[in-house]
Amino acid sequence: MKLQGTMEINRQGHLEIGGCDTVELARQFGTPLYVLDETHFRQNCRSYYRAFTEKYEGMVIYAGKTLLTLAVCHIVDQEGLGLDVASGGELYTAKQARFPMDRIFFHGNNKSENELKMALDYKVGRIMVDNNYELETLNDLAGRAGTVADIILRLTPGVEAHTHAYIKTGQVDSKFGVVIENGQALAIIKRALAMQNVRLRGLHCHIGSQIFELESYSHAAEVMMEFAVATHRETGWSPEEINLGGGLGIYYAEGDEPKPVEHYADAAVQVVRDLARDGGLPLPKVLVEPGRSISGPAGTTLYAVGAVKEIPGVRKYVAVDGGMVDNPRPAMYQSRYEALLANRASEEPQEIVSIAGKCCESGDMLIWDIKLPAPHPGDILAISATGAYNYSMSMNYNRLPRPAMVLAGDGRADIIVARESYEDLIRNDMVPEHLLNNKVVKLVSAGSTG
Amino acid sequence: MKLQGTMEINRQGHLEIGGCDTVELARQFGTPLYVLDETHFRQNCRSYYRAFTEKYEGMVIYAGKTLLTLAVCHIVDQEGLGLDVASGGELYTAKQARFPMDRIFFHGNNKSENELKMALDYKVGRIMVDNNYELETLNDLAGRAGTVADIILRLTPGVEAHTHAYIKTGQVDSKFGVVIENGQALAIIKRALAMQNVRLRGLHCHIGSQIFELESYSHAAEVMMEFAVATHRETGWSPEEINLGGGLGIYYAEGDEPKPVEHYADAAVQVVRDLARDGGLPLPKVLVEPGRSISGPAGTTLYAVGAVKEIPGVRKYVAVDGGMVDNPRPAMYQSRYEALLANRASEEPQEIVSIAGKCCESGDMLIWDIKLPAPHPGDILAISATGAYNYSMSMNYNRLPRPAMVLAGDGRADIIVARESYEDLIRNDMVPEHLLNNKVVKLVSAGSTG
Repeated sequence: MKLQGTMEINRQGHLEIGGCDTVELARQFGTPLYVLDETHFRQNCRSYYRAFTEKYEGMVIYAGKTLLTLAVCHIVDQEGLGLDVASGGELYTAKQARFPMDRIFFHGNNKSENELKMALDYKVGRIMVDNNYELETLNDLAGRAGTVADIILRLTPGVEAHTHAYIKTGQVDSKFGVVIENGQALAIIKRALAMQNVRLRGLHCHIGSQIFELESYSHAAEVMMEFAVATHRETGWSPEEINLGGGLGIYYAEGDEPKPVEHYADAAVQVVRDLARDGGLPLPKVLVEPGRSISGPAGTTLYAVGAVKEIPGVRKYVAVDGGMVDNPRPAMYQSRYEALLANRASEEPQEIVSIAGKCCESGDMLIWDIKLPAPHPGDILAISATGAYNYSMSMNYNRLPRPAMVLAGDGRADIIVARESYEDLIRNDMVPEHLLNNKVVKLVSAGSTG
Repeated sequence: MKLQGTMEINRQGHLEIGGCDTVELARQFGTPLYVLDETHFRQNCRSYYRAFTEKYEGMVIYAGKTLLTLAVCHIVDQEGLGLDVASGGELYTAKQARFPMDRIFFHGNNKSENELKMALDYKVGRIMVDNNYELETLNDLAGRAGTVADIILRLTPGVEAHTHAYIKTGQVDSKFGVVIENGQALAIIKRALAMQNVRLRGLHCHIGSQIFELESYSHAAEVMMEFAVATHRETGWSPEEINLGGGLGIYYAEGDEPKPVEHYADAAVQVVRDLARDGGLPLPKVLVEPGRSISGPAGTTLYAVGAVKEIPGVRKYVAVDGGMVDNPRPAMYQSRYEALLANRASEEPQEIVSIAGKCCESGDMLIWDIKLPAPHPGDILAISATGAYNYSMSMNYNRLPRPAMVLAGDGRADIIVARESYEDLIRNDMVPEHLLNNKVVKLVSAGSTG
């Protein structure tokens, strides 16, 4: 496993994160446990912030969907980033954390009326309008509320990035955004410009996630700016903000080679600058949504090893006390991860094993074929790069309570998400009276099969 | 959409379930809404119960992992079925519903010590032991608790059923069970028989899920019984119970052709009976785990249609107010579903559309290419056969609150799972003091990007 952020192996051969011995964290807080490396998270924020603001007037927008809790909102705020929310629930979380509403960007392909009302009521910075229906609805709601909504239109630039089909969003056949090449984008811009209760501030695109080729971004920036120039010629309007989305790839496992943020920033900004100048447009702000690259590498999950099962000549299964419930990505996206034994981190890997989750589901495998020191029950397995789309996609399948999350930094660890209890699992369960009263005609006797 | 259970189209052209107008249910309880057809659920229980108990001494075990709430426990209990739990959380739920503990079967490839202790403490009917480590641990824990655990050993019969790779569990290379063909199964039986604190009651196998070929089951029964006969010859022990697992396919969409339960029962029981007789074994009870076939067809999800987006010549996207968060199966298993417009159920389908969820995820598509009357915002879309692995696999991705569930029957609908609130989403969030105090060195000013 590649050591990232503040990870170190200490004198006892234990993995440390943020100056905390992870074996001690597992003992103190139980497993599975999400550990968020505060310093690493902040460093990732700062790399992006510097790359997009030092040489240029840009803005970095953290993707709430990758990981959002009250504590995370506070950190993102302190680091000066904007926040991309994708639902009323994410917006509510940001509001409860007193995140500055003018730095909120509200995304989504199907915001409800209630969510749009909430966004207007909270006065969020920008509503990212996805389609005509939403534009009409929003203009109407803003009118009734006597306000004007600042919006950015989401466009589909027709750029296909090389990545997993599920996380490829820039192509024409997408549930997101309005297509440029068939004229629908120009039409919706004209419509927005004619409206009384929306103020069109910019354009947005997102070509996908976990992308390693900078050329895809330059190409998307090119398509967006060429369109902006053409639109300006036709309408006189030009975007104050160009939001190029995000999706820069991170390191999950061998073979992943993330590019430095500056390369991405320089490439994108250069294209925007050149085309704005050539097209006679005022230079727009460049907005970027780093997605998983901020939270992803800063997260590690600690599991306790339970059953170890060898099928001679076939495979050794090492089962841990979590799985697809706390990390659905391997099951859903065939994602690869690296791991080490946190309590024996300086031992040489000796054998190839596969890491199984504890759900009653064959697909609940976290890692196939990883080299580790022979794992024993009770060992602590650390899987890295689990900061994004793990807690945020976690579930209670098999009625497994969701893990706790601690924020580790400067040798101190604080709980930022409390572990779910069994009581939490049935909190919303209700039993109608007719079931309690046993009024139902029973065709069979309950006792007869016992 | 094939009408199942108590589904009807009423005079207003609305879909009814359990005598309730689903358009009215959507209005009253909001959307997305899970609707469980009580009569259909009970009928499914009864079909299995009859098929396995009328002609034969068998037992039907409901799979909690498909759908488990307090109310569901009550119904399963009333119908005389056993209950398969796969975690402490499911066991806790059953206990809170006062489900008879002697009809509980505790499954799982990696039960924790705490879960095993809980099972011993609650005196569950059977612990399904998956592997050597668990057997040793359980024997030890039972010994310390001064009790004897009734167990069934889970074996892998080496039968491959034709189904999705993720839900294929009978093959040798599986995280579940002990392999028969390499001798490991016989070895663990001998070990169990020599132990003081476990009582070996039977053998279990499970060859997969959503299976339509009865031959796979007969073949599994054959392998299990041949092994039982060989084991009896070697050890003198023979199983009182043969648990043939479950996984009978249900109707999700055109092309799925479930076999009548009786065919399955008759085929399986015949094999067990013949081989027991020929091998000189006392006839074991046949246990069966119908999995999704009880809960799956009895569930329907109601969504409100929001944005409708046509990309001319490409596709019409119809977005609903739920998605992969309440039904991850299409994203995870490429599962197919059928749907209709509940408020226009008697209109002729006119056009091919695709149903998108509202998550910020391209993979959040519920149905590709389905023929419907042209959907408009505000229409209620009903997706059928969502009773299994929908609520139980639901998540809060994008911080979307999980839907409510109502039990509909005899013209009455009762909430059995309350809708999550925004408050629920942050219930376990905690903010460490050092974040509130803003003690962190801020490299950047929070205001500079706003």
